[in-house]
Amino acid sequence: MIDIRDDWKSKLVVYAITDDREDTKSLLAAVEAALAGGATAIQLRRKRDDGGPMLRLGLEIRRLTREARALYIVNDRVDIALLTEADGIHVGQTDIPCKRVRELAPDKLIGVSARTTAEAFEAERDGADYVGVGAVFPTTTKADAIHSGIDTLRAIAGTSSIPVVAIGGIDIARAPQVLAAGADGLAVVSAIMSAPSPRDAARAFASLYRESDRSR
Amino acid sequence: MIDIRDDWKSKLVVYAITDDREDTKSLLAAVEAALAGGATAIQLRRKRDDGGPMLRLGLEIRRLTREARALYIVNDRVDIALLTEADGIHVGQTDIPCKRVRELAPDKLIGVSARTTAEAFEAERDGADYVGVGAVFPTTTKADAIHSGIDTLRAIAGTSSIPVVAIGGIDIARAPQVLAAGADGLAVVSAIMSAPSPRDAARAFASLYRESDRSR
Ligand code: NI
Repeated sequence: MIDIRDDWKSKLVVYAITDDREDTKSLLAAVEAALAGGATAIQLRRKRDDGGPMLRLGLEIRRLTREARALYIVNDRVDIALLTEADGIHVGQTDIPCKRVRELAPDKLIGVSARTTAEAFEAERDGADYVGVGAVFPTTTKADAIHSGIDTLRAIAGTSSIPVVAIGGIDIARAPQVLAAGADGLAVVSAIMSAPSPRDAARAFASLYRESDRSR
Repeated sequence: MIDIRDDWKSKLVVYAITDDREDTKSLLAAVEAALAGGATAIQLRRKRDDGGPMLRLGLEIRRLTREARALYIVNDRVDIALLTEADGIHVGQTDIPCKRVRELAPDKLIGVSARTTAEAFEAERDGADYVGVGAVFPTTTKADAIHSGIDTLRAIAGTSSIPVVAIGGIDIARAPQVLAAGADGLAVVSAIMSAPSPRDAARAFASLYRESDRSR
């Protein structure tokens, strides 16, 4: 059986994150379209859902990502990640710490959000598999997100020995400078999920990456 | 070593549930006082917390309940329950279903909320260890809670072969009719946590139970 996690680092490139819309049918349609367009990873992030609805969404996304051979990562909730056979878990600075996540899920990828070089260093030291750096640009999705900026991204990408996924306000116009700063992946919420065509949007990010220096 | 879960059914009697206050120091003080007064179980229920703060609270409550030989139960999040060595997990109808919780936590007690006799029957059939029935009275803690009423409680208590914990708007004045309806335990949020003295409040519930027919 092909393990989706084979070559997982190359699957951080077009990393689409779900939004909090109530219409889960529409959300799953957007996820499916994003995968058809070339999204390489889907993160289930649902801050308002109870465990039941999140579990059902996760099982659907696991099915879709398995078909597409894309990574499926769950934000915050290790229990949902375990029950839906996720490839990984992504935690922020206020979620369960990386080391404790590892206790519950020794075989999964663990991503940790970092806003500063210090947080990125700590994540690597604590055994994170990749680090999510941001917000690189101001964002509407997380109104309270600290704006880390491109310079912080460049500093972390230059010193980190684990892959660096950039997040926060990334759209097609801004993606080139994010890649030029050394990002291994582009984490995107609204520029894919709220695009008129999530499929075209994901495809645009994928081809932009292929044509960049990062893919060489 | 004495297992706190020995004789766990008798520890559902004074079942105090945490509220969502921001001041966690004050919350832990209330928990400690409730235990000193005779609370037999503490449920960590924090709907607004991220995993990190909830984990820290859980570790503190585990320490306090271990000293008091009281049950410690986590609402909704199985991951936090596992990491904090909880005795059990409590799930509502929109949380992870009982059977899936059991997969992750085969050795823990599982409580399931039920608003109707049908939901209570389903919980028992799905392997719940106890059922939480309510809201027996209108409540301010859960504004959206369906009011099940004393009659539903009586019907469930009369047919259920697992313990029945009543919840929703229970205070000292109303507790006697809840016990008379057949409840095995009194789940209480504000009447203990927001009492001028959580210790005196817990003690009052405990002695009310001891003097009731239920304790014979
Ligand atoms: Ni939550």
